[in-house]
Amino acid sequence: MKAEIVAVGTELLMGETQDTNSSWLGTRLPELGLELEWVTIVGDDIGRLTEALERAWGRSGVIITIGGLGPTLDDVTRDAIAKMLGEEMSVAPELKTWLEENFSRRNIRPMPQSNLRQARMIPSATAILNAMGTAPSWWIERDGKILVTLPGPPRELMNMWTTEVVPRLKERLPGQAIVSRTFKTIGLSEAALDELVRDVYDIPGMDLGVYTKPDGIHVRAIAKAPVEAEAVRVLERAEAAIRSALGAYIWGTGEESPPEKVGELLRERGYTLAVVESCTGGMLGAAITDVPGASDYFVGGTIAYTTGLKLMAGVPSEVIDGSGAVSAETAQAMASAACTTYGADCGIGVTGVAGPGDVDGIKAGTVFIGVAVPGSAGVEPYAFPSRRPLVRGRAVTAALLQLTRALQRP
Amino acid sequence: MKAEIVAVGTELLMGETQDTNSSWLGTRLPELGLELEWVTIVGDDIGRLTEALERAWGRSGVIITIGGLGPTLDDVTRDAIAKMLGEEMSVAPELKTWLEENFSRRNIRPMPQSNLRQARMIPSATAILNAMGTAPSWWIERDGKILVTLPGPPRELMNMWTTEVVPRLKERLPGQAIVSRTFKTIGLSEAALDELVRDVYDIPGMDLGVYTKPDGIHVRAIAKAPVEAEAVRVLERAEAAIRSALGAYIWGTGEESPPEKVGELLRERGYTLAVVESCTGGMLGAAITDVPGASDYFVGGTIAYTTGLKLMAGVPSEVIDGSGAVSAETAQAMASAACTTYGADCGIGVTGVAGPGDVDGIKAGTVFIGVAVPGSAGVEPYAFPSRRPLVRGRAVTAALLQLTRALQRP
Repeated sequence: MKAEIVAVGTELLMGETQDTNSSWLGTRLPELGLELEWVTIVGDDIGRLTEALERAWGRSGVIITIGGLGPTLDDVTRDAIAKMLGEEMSVAPELKTWLEENFSRRNIRPMPQSNLRQARMIPSATAILNAMGTAPSWWIERDGKILVTLPGPPRELMNMWTTEVVPRLKERLPGQAIVSRTFKTIGLSEAALDELVRDVYDIPGMDLGVYTKPDGIHVRAIAKAPVEAEAVRVLERAEAAIRSALGAYIWGTGEESPPEKVGELLRERGYTLAVVESCTGGMLGAAITDVPGASDYFVGGTIAYTTGLKLMAGVPSEVIDGSGAVSAETAQAMASAACTTYGADCGIGVTGVAGPGDVDGIKAGTVFIGVAVPGSAGVEPYAFPSRRPLVRGRAVTAALLQLTRALQRP
Repeated sequence: MKAEIVAVGTELLMGETQDTNSSWLGTRLPELGLELEWVTIVGDDIGRLTEALERAWGRSGVIITIGGLGPTLDDVTRDAIAKMLGEEMSVAPELKTWLEENFSRRNIRPMPQSNLRQARMIPSATAILNAMGTAPSWWIERDGKILVTLPGPPRELMNMWTTEVVPRLKERLPGQAIVSRTFKTIGLSEAALDELVRDVYDIPGMDLGVYTKPDGIHVRAIAKAPVEAEAVRVLERAEAAIRSALGAYIWGTGEESPPEKVGELLRERGYTLAVVESCTGGMLGAAITDVPGASDYFVGGTIAYTTGLKLMAGVPSEVIDGSGAVSAETAQAMASAACTTYGADCGIGVTGVAGPGDVDGIKAGTVFIGVAVPGSAGVEPYAFPSRRPLVRGRAVTAALLQLTRALQRP
């Protein structure tokens, strides 16, 4: 079925806010069997918004609006939908009560008069309560079409989509169950990976997507069948084939991120981690501590942006003098120093040339990453595309995945 | 004049790529006197793209397409425009030559046959050569309207927009010169700032925009006049009024970022910098080293995620024991330790509770930042909104701006 998004907000057109919601929804619609054909961004203007909604209603089966549900006069999504459908709005008493309780819980009494605008409904809409904000959404089914209004703040939108909208859509969408799983790989090119999973494409009911992401190449397997149990069987068959084809190249599944994966493995094994990082300048530590509770396993480390700080962190001067600051030997010594200096079980050392220019004849994009875990240590060389932000970002992901593999080794 | 963007690419609808170009252009159009009313995202589908272009041509004065200019069959922007305007495409000999030379410079001979598609033109288009890629753009003026095709890769788009499209648009747009300047502030609420600059709104020909950004509140002054010299005079008058109203709250102008500002000041004064950061976990170092050439002034520091590492970095144990790991005294001691331990002229210390939960009775969002520069030292407490990513991001910006102010102090 064809789907369409209408995102509302002058701030989106002025570039003050980036519309990340449409892109987030775009990755999730195919799993419901919905094909997103149009995204339209319009300002807080009832005329243009109504025009966009009329067109969407005319050509798409599922219409999702984003934003414009606030209490102020420039929040016109409800008004435009009512106008487009030719229905009258009136305040729904149960929504008014819910809103008043919402404000009362936050010690705001009485509720500001303007918020009553959020309690208005049209006859063909039912309300979806917003667990994270004051804006209830409308769920509309009419003329064989579905229209749902999502709130603009990404946290509210994601929560409402996952907990309220997906179950409703799954019930309504014509007799098809869809289940999916994403496998995240590192170390293979897109072409090589595609070659290895070629057979999986032939499994009936199976659809494969291959995506290049900052943390490696993702393979998303989508299984479709008339009933859920059958779709799950198709997916299991595909998973077995994918795992047998890609084996050790897979480092995680689903929504897992490299820092979360590292955290999970360190926690399981009761290990601590320290870093000595040079060209990433703190980005590796920042990524590790992005995970709440990282202090359970991460002790910290050194941002060793000069040779002096590498020495202070415990890297032997003869290694740097002998092999150079950017070398496999130094990366390895940085990883060991992270363990010994900071008393950690595991250590990561990163040294390289972030660019834009080459340094001392070493090409920008050259990075060496050393990893030490109890009982083993290793170092790997990388040649990343030579743009500075890319080099640093890829180096962080590579370091975390290298540690993941070292921890997973039997 | 009304402007409209049509962004092309199935990958944008599938959420594989985020359309950041429209948002970037959205911030730049007002300065040309263009009002962006619609952004439409469509897939690589000639039917739907033609439909979107016909609608845009019917309602907007300036139409900008993004993407779909590659050499493969699914790059259909040129085809759809030709269809919409009812014109025939043919290979332009001078473009063919330019493309062949482009490939020859990269040692690809002969040019792949498919790239000939990029040399096609319609009678009402002139070519804009792409300094950063193989896709030339079309500049079309017909029926009092302007249509320009921009390449999808952000670097190519930004370069072509700035160097080729803006000058052409400025020439064509009706007798109005527009100049603008952004002033970046920290330490004032949006409401307080608005109050202080109220008089500036009254300057004839002046338009003010106030935007809340991660690095503080930005004030953009846009001056319009029939001729450029007059617009510049209006802007100068506004700048004087803004500087007199906001004074020390302004930390920078234009495209300057806090890490760049810090780098510029350190370089000017010949100072070096080290950090001892706790709750930001490396993000501060990462931000500082985001600037190419940061190794000229940044020596590195410690990610002190445990008390043990704070002690190793040189923070006296009596300070931590006496005042607690998250305290003004410890932040100040971390800044001093950064200087003394690493032999740097300036030091920053950051300690706080990133959240989500409170720690030892200290509210999530509480952050203390100490800054030491030659001859002075100071510490400031912050209470950021208690969401973990926000706390860490704001703490990094606050630390850099605190250092900026300390360095700017006479």
